[in-house]
Amino acid sequence: MNRSAAAVHEWVASFERALTAGDIEGAAALFAAESYWRDLVAFSWNLTTVEGRAGVAELLRTTLGSTRPRGFAVTGEPTEGPGCVEAWLSFETAVGRGTAQLRLVEGRAWTLLTALDELKGHEEPTGDRRPRGAEHGADPDRVTWLERRTRETEELGHSRQPEVVIVGGGQGGIALAARLRQLDVPTIVVERSPRPGDSWRNRYKSLCLHDPVWYDHLPYLPFPATWPVYAPKDKIGDWLEMYTQVMELNYWGSTTARSATYDERTGRWELVVDRAGEPVTLRPRQLVLALGVSGKPNVPEFPGRERFLGDQHHSSAHPGPDAYAGKRAVVIGSNNSAHDICAALWETGAEVTMVQRSSTCVVRSDLLMEHALGPLYSERAAASGIDTRAADLTLASVPYRIMGRFQKPIYDTIREEDAEFYARLAKAGFELDFGDDDSGMFLKYLRRGSGYYIEVGASELVADGSITLARGEVAELTEREVVLADGTRLEADLVVYATGYRSMNGLAADLVGPAVADRVGKVWGLGSDTAKDPGPWEGEERNMWKPTRQPGLWFHGGNLQQSRHYSLYLALQLKARAEGIPTPVYGLAEVHHTS
Amino acid sequence: MNRSAAAVHEWVASFERALTAGDIEGAAALFAAESYWRDLVAFSWNLTTVEGRAGVAELLRTTLGSTRPRGFAVTGEPTEGPGCVEAWLSFETAVGRGTAQLRLVEGRAWTLLTALDELKGHEEPTGDRRPRGAEHGADPDRVTWLERRTRETEELGHSRQPEVVIVGGGQGGIALAARLRQLDVPTIVVERSPRPGDSWRNRYKSLCLHDPVWYDHLPYLPFPATWPVYAPKDKIGDWLEMYTQVMELNYWGSTTARSATYDERTGRWELVVDRAGEPVTLRPRQLVLALGVSGKPNVPEFPGRERFLGDQHHSSAHPGPDAYAGKRAVVIGSNNSAHDICAALWETGAEVTMVQRSSTCVVRSDLLMEHALGPLYSERAAASGIDTRAADLTLASVPYRIMGRFQKPIYDTIREEDAEFYARLAKAGFELDFGDDDSGMFLKYLRRGSGYYIEVGASELVADGSITLARGEVAELTEREVVLADGTRLEADLVVYATGYRSMNGLAADLVGPAVADRVGKVWGLGSDTAKDPGPWEGEERNMWKPTRQPGLWFHGGNLQQSRHYSLYLALQLKARAEGIPTPVYGLAEVHHTS
Repeated sequence: MNRSAAAVHEWVASFERALTAGDIEGAAALFAAESYWRDLVAFSWNLTTVEGRAGVAELLRTTLGSTRPRGFAVTGEPTEGPGCVEAWLSFETAVGRGTAQLRLVEGRAWTLLTALDELKGHEEPTGDRRPRGAEHGADPDRVTWLERRTRETEELGHSRQPEVVIVGGGQGGIALAARLRQLDVPTIVVERSPRPGDSWRNRYKSLCLHDPVWYDHLPYLPFPATWPVYAPKDKIGDWLEMYTQVMELNYWGSTTARSATYDERTGRWELVVDRAGEPVTLRPRQLVLALGVSGKPNVPEFPGRERFLGDQHHSSAHPGPDAYAGKRAVVIGSNNSAHDICAALWETGAEVTMVQRSSTCVVRSDLLMEHALGPLYSERAAASGIDTRAADLTLASVPYRIMGRFQKPIYDTIREEDAEFYARLAKAGFELDFGDDDSGMFLKYLRRGSGYYIEVGASELVADGSITLARGEVAELTEREVVLADGTRLEADLVVYATGYRSMNGLAADLVGPAVADRVGKVWGLGSDTAKDPGPWEGEERNMWKPTRQPGLWFHGGNLQQSRHYSLYLALQLKARAEGIPTPVYGLAEVHHTS
Repeated sequence: MNRSAAAVHEWVASFERALTAGDIEGAAALFAAESYWRDLVAFSWNLTTVEGRAGVAELLRTTLGSTRPRGFAVTGEPTEGPGCVEAWLSFETAVGRGTAQLRLVEGRAWTLLTALDELKGHEEPTGDRRPRGAEHGADPDRVTWLERRTRETEELGHSRQPEVVIVGGGQGGIALAARLRQLDVPTIVVERSPRPGDSWRNRYKSLCLHDPVWYDHLPYLPFPATWPVYAPKDKIGDWLEMYTQVMELNYWGSTTARSATYDERTGRWELVVDRAGEPVTLRPRQLVLALGVSGKPNVPEFPGRERFLGDQHHSSAHPGPDAYAGKRAVVIGSNNSAHDICAALWETGAEVTMVQRSSTCVVRSDLLMEHALGPLYSERAAASGIDTRAADLTLASVPYRIMGRFQKPIYDTIREEDAEFYARLAKAGFELDFGDDDSGMFLKYLRRGSGYYIEVGASELVADGSITLARGEVAELTEREVVLADGTRLEADLVVYATGYRSMNGLAADLVGPAVADRVGKVWGLGSDTAKDPGPWEGEERNMWKPTRQPGLWFHGGNLQQSRHYSLYLALQLKARAEGIPTPVYGLAEVHHTS
């Protein structure tokens, strides 16, 4: 065994000894002065990152007794990381089994990830635990799968109440429902569109996923080897529809959630939904809002909106470019939606102006694939043995606090490699950024869920002037113009407000009321004290995939990778509650912002 | 390198040298006196097994010049097999790339498999060749995926003729269509039921697959880790429906094929179908019948059928047991369908008699899984690195002629391990066999497609007398009885003829006429000169997955494993013809039987 591996084994043995002996100071001493321990559920029944020896000690003081961690063991061979040794571990707790990732610097832990994989006695029936299917033997009371499934569909939500209702049947809600199905937690997904996948079908026609396929797999059933790298929206719609069926999800389409009230006494929600015109009351213990990273559309109240004679709508309501050939389109905004919509309008033959109000982080898709995602999520990563689970855990093992250090070099490389592209874009007047601290696009997404564009063609149109670029704030609209603050007048037949979304808890407010929404606070963001992500530092995404200040209320979502990976941790937390397994939450986050 | 590996490398080098030099005798000398070379398309543009040095020499004399094989190389490490050394090889031909499997005994080839994997220039766009999906860049003439797909759906079969039409939209037709889609061969599947999967949905309610999941995967998109071992019929139905959609197959449900006439001059079929009441004429170059291993139902003409007052129908038309609680059911037959139907009737409370007319090979499902399938198709096989492709090729590498030698020990083990079960079954009067030569169930299936039962509960009911067993031929039916040849009278409210099926070319006769059907001859069987599989020896399955004596007519099917694996070779043969790649067929099989 080489020296690095020996150091890892020694650390693990010391850590195990300290934990077993209840020696909290001893355990903390195993961490470097600058260190981070990220725990996903296993110790904290929360998504938690603590910092430094003091943080470690505090986490352990509170959680060690009930967690009873043991059995830390190195799995596989430790490897050399950036200035550290990296190793994968397995471990157990009183109620579960988990995976850990360790980065050692000079014999002390720089980062530690502990993630719960499964609950003892409630392991997923997959692989060699998959159900038998056929009930072999002769059974006069045989109930076939179809009969059982039909019965469940008829009963659940009517004569039998679900444990969980998920509001929102997009990829997030669907992924979470699949996890809960595997954990045998009775769950209903309610979605206002008729069919699973409609949220994709209803988007503008040229839309494709911006993230490559290896990043996007849903749980249990990955896209096949034949699936395109960037899936067209309708293929994703079809996949979600079929996934919902074959993964046996209880999916109520054409169902709109109207109101939700929590009853502290019973520990259940009274959730009123409109199911194809019929009111139905559901009484789940847990309510999950899976309405997307974005909340309600943000439509700025520009003066003169009411007098504008042309078409105007938020990007989320944009029907696509077909009606606008030969028309003059003004798109307010310069991030993903704005670019997609501008390019589609240009392709149809509209005269397009993009109004950029603030800087945008632009990265060409191929370079993002090559430099940012490729090491973990690509054909070559898979071929080299990094499966989806390993990729997800590796990504999760990087604490948000220091992620910039990992990300900045990637974007420095991209800037250099694509200098010519960026120069042309800047020459056209486009205001570029690479995140507040040059830490790049991914962190910008994690901090504020917006402010970037994955270039798939629109930037070239901006660079060469095909799309006219205007800069500045909007002052007002007239009957036929958008007037900017500097007096520029843009004639318009169409105005598209690609002006983003509000926090998800705004959607919550519609459902559970403003008091609950305020109690829960802002959803998303890290507290990085950068644009649109005010401090103080949270350490984790606000309110995502973890307990909130409203008992029984949870938020799920994120991009496809997050929807897939974090659905596991949310499902485990919900399963534990369904089974009456104690879930003492460490470090329930304070609420610092309500929007 | 150890001695075995050295022997393999030496053999491969010698083989390469001989082939390159055109030294046919030299190549043949590398084979043992008792030897077999099975070629799947690569050399023979057929599925062909030749035997002995003379067979090898003849194959090479005819095919070496056009095949131009080269580049034989050992992949991975040779291993010890049963009295031989086994190795995997890769190789190339003028037009393709392939995989080979070699078994060496004392330095000479005992078995050689050469299988075409892909055609150069027409490689499947999977994995790192998967399509991009999003058309990056700006394209004023952009056609979205949905528009392209919609256009294809509207045009194909109307303004544009398909290259291939597959008649039969069960798992066989669907698997083949998926392969052809990946090879960009315009294909339509016609199926008389409305939805993909209906052929499963319409079966009796307790039906589950008899083969375990690892054996059953469709191409490209394996069942997920959550899928049951023995899938209930309705889950399979849902999967097939989903697969058809996401794999973008052109599937015409509610479409019945009426007639097919081949035009030698144009090299196209005139295929008339009834599509939801409208006649449509399709003109494919290739017509594939994928109607299942079984052909038309075989309903014996027992005297007195017309006077019987109860219900009577073939097993394929059996509606299930629900109407027969408390009734007396007589099921003629003792193979799979008979057992399934008897057990379901018993569970519903019918009084059931099974009439066994000939012996049946019975094996309990768990033992089949453990001993017959497990080494290649199981969770443990997958975990040990034997993926589906490796398992399929390993299975294909065993020549049919000697398969009994590989299979008999398996069934000897099963007989011994389950001796108690077999004793009880025999005590109840059941007539058991293990194939004509004790070579077991799988060979019985390969030879005659029938004559076996994978025990999932019905045999226990026979053994304990819950299902009454009668033995002998049926003499006649009266108004209320089935009368056996020995005079036994069985009162009956229901008679089910679980009496099997005729050869698939009977179905062909309905479509293409008796002359063509006779020209093609019997479908299925090896020519083993055993019950229902008359000689002479064919070496391969009659007429399956390979050229027939009717140009442009092909048969696809088999169990799910065969549907999956052999769809590749059939698709490659069809692709080659679509691309005008020369396909000189070696050893087009003689027709010895027409039914």
